[in-house]
Amino acid sequence: MSAQPEQPGAVQPSKAGSLGPGPQVVAGLEAARRARAWLSRAVEPGHALMYRYVESVGPKEAMRALRGARAPAELQALVGARHDDDRVAADLAAATSIGARLLAPGDPEWPVDSLHAMTVATAMGVEAIAAPLALWVRGNGDLANLTRRAVAVVGARASTSYGAEQAAQLGFDLAERGWTVVSGGAFGIDAAAHRGALSAGVPTIAVLAGGIDRSYPAAHAALFERIAQDGLLISEWPPGCAPYRHRFLIRNRLIAALSAGCVVVEASARSGARHTAGRAQELGRPVMAFPGPVSSAMSVGTHTLLRDTEARLVTGVEHVIEEIGQLGVDLAPLVRGPDTARDALTAVQARTLEALPNRRPVLPEHIARAAGLSVLEVLSALPALETRGFVESIDGAWRLVRLGRPQGL
Amino acid sequence: MSAQPEQPGAVQPSKAGSLGPGPQVVAGLEAARRARAWLSRAVEPGHALMYRYVESVGPKEAMRALRGARAPAELQALVGARHDDDRVAADLAAATSIGARLLAPGDPEWPVDSLHAMTVATAMGVEAIAAPLALWVRGNGDLANLTRRAVAVVGARASTSYGAEQAAQLGFDLAERGWTVVSGGAFGIDAAAHRGALSAGVPTIAVLAGGIDRSYPAAHAALFERIAQDGLLISEWPPGCAPYRHRFLIRNRLIAALSAGCVVVEASARSGARHTAGRAQELGRPVMAFPGPVSSAMSVGTHTLLRDTEARLVTGVEHVIEEIGQLGVDLAPLVRGPDTARDALTAVQARTLEALPNRRPVLPEHIARAAGLSVLEVLSALPALETRGFVESIDGAWRLVRLGRPQGL
Repeated sequence: MSAQPEQPGAVQPSKAGSLGPGPQVVAGLEAARRARAWLSRAVEPGHALMYRYVESVGPKEAMRALRGARAPAELQALVGARHDDDRVAADLAAATSIGARLLAPGDPEWPVDSLHAMTVATAMGVEAIAAPLALWVRGNGDLANLTRRAVAVVGARASTSYGAEQAAQLGFDLAERGWTVVSGGAFGIDAAAHRGALSAGVPTIAVLAGGIDRSYPAAHAALFERIAQDGLLISEWPPGCAPYRHRFLIRNRLIAALSAGCVVVEASARSGARHTAGRAQELGRPVMAFPGPVSSAMSVGTHTLLRDTEARLVTGVEHVIEEIGQLGVDLAPLVRGPDTARDALTAVQARTLEALPNRRPVLPEHIARAAGLSVLEVLSALPALETRGFVESIDGAWRLVRLGRPQGL
Repeated sequence: MSAQPEQPGAVQPSKAGSLGPGPQVVAGLEAARRARAWLSRAVEPGHALMYRYVESVGPKEAMRALRGARAPAELQALVGARHDDDRVAADLAAATSIGARLLAPGDPEWPVDSLHAMTVATAMGVEAIAAPLALWVRGNGDLANLTRRAVAVVGARASTSYGAEQAAQLGFDLAERGWTVVSGGAFGIDAAAHRGALSAGVPTIAVLAGGIDRSYPAAHAALFERIAQDGLLISEWPPGCAPYRHRFLIRNRLIAALSAGCVVVEASARSGARHTAGRAQELGRPVMAFPGPVSSAMSVGTHTLLRDTEARLVTGVEHVIEEIGQLGVDLAPLVRGPDTARDALTAVQARTLEALPNRRPVLPEHIARAAGLSVLEVLSALPALETRGFVESIDGAWRLVRLGRPQGL
């Protein structure tokens, strides 16, 4: 897998470049970035098949094969008529002209920790949840930094005044406590959550379903400008791309992945917010929902979540933080090195670690059975264990790291 | 235990008396009833110690001992200065004058099935949940009949218009589907639930914390008259008794016991309705709660129930009936006889039955451990198994019934 956790001292591109790699390395990285730019326009993101292909042959070879119409048929079909299109230069120029940039795996700003659950889930065969190949971002925020403590706040576009008020209050309260609000920039709950965070003077992240140069909805142009000042607008699609309906569903997994938990404030019976909540659940993120009057159509979706899923009822910021804290993975301070790491593990992480056999790599299902945990719990624990150097993954299976194994284990 | 399930063909008093027992039996039963009338004024109900004493020596001897100040000291202390009071004749006359009656265990109208969970819980040592010694009832309803399919609907006195509307709608919907609404006759949610049921032309039960001749609150005098027409007013205290504050807490366990489940529509942070819900949970009854706006003080209690207990979020009658149906005990049609009974068992009942050893009686905790069930699940399954003739209880322990044991077991 190319999305390796950042190694202190490893050679990596840096924005300032003062202590960065030499010119040849930079040229190679930029060629890979251009290939990812091409891929971001050629294929709709989220396909596990394409993600695995790019990971295995590398972005440059993937682009070459797809452009030459000689990639495996299934992958070639995903690109279709776009294979002889080349708008990379124009797309990168368009991004530069609006102060945007293209992030790729390996960049210091790439949100490795947040996206890891996706990588694992994809390796496990969960469909339609593949990690992004690249991210077009606009704004002065640092993505890796802002997503270190982030919460998704999503909900109905046609929110009630009750819902909008709760979302704004929650956005404000989370921001005040140092959490980044991640949402979709839509009317209703999304906008209220962003505005609540901004009103606390804290940056927020809007994940869009079209190009980051397009204001959708148009009425939110000023809001998006404000978000970009200190926070970020993010999209998997290049500048100019239209926010097609199906792209919102693809986008939703990214809102879930970039956040430690997902709060649904209001949702109708058939709501996109419930879709985002489902993605969060698949990624092992806690899902929370606000209750509301049973007579309100905009609370039907949240009540269904509370009845039919593991979603927890929350009524305000304390409940939300309590819930995210329980997971521990995204909250616990990153402890590197073998000596102190064991103590910092959550109960679930410790049980996951103990369930790993001494030698052979095993699948997460196997670990879950051995540990008496759910597969999702194991999937959420493994990335943290990997980051701490306890375990490593090989083609979706996991094993203990032999060297540097913590003492007393 | 004197609260035996009704045996077909057994000698029992009947209201009409046409096929009833002979005059000596009737005289004995009436003496016991008078003793229970005396006890109902002499001791506050709900004490497990007093309940067990009356069960073991019988109501007449219990009264004689307490009046002679020669009962065990702990019990005598519960009666205190009331030991030389005798207002039995006056109380019974007062009841008769308002068309009320005193029910005692053994009466056809005595709600044996509903109260069984209490008897078991008391035998198990659960405090403050003892079955009643007698019930003063007023109204044309038949208590055993009305509580066969009954649901408690309780909530805040200072309900909002939202809560009152939901309670009235739920009362109406439950009544239309053949369920009796049991509540406390208070302002707010209680009254709305009663009125909802009455507006469907279906009887309802109000369990009061003072004498059934007293309207508390006074403004509900007309409502209580209407309830008594086809339904019932019930109290453990004799006519004339004041609804002291502590009596509401004692009363709450009876609302829970007489119902297959307990729905809290609105409750403040410190609400009596949550107390009733706690009693229901102790008795193994499912607890349900309506969500509401998080900004409403009258939904703080229901949201706490939903977050911190097993209570299930419900938004209307379908959810409520679905929840009560899961328990099975009060819903399943009574199947007698060894041949067909096994098939009618719920999963919990079947597991409870299978966990009973062949010979010796065992405590419910023992069964729960063997079956991998909670004690409350076992406590809720045993009465149904007893009613069906599978098991019998001896001083709080349970064993398989040897004769008439179902085939293929």
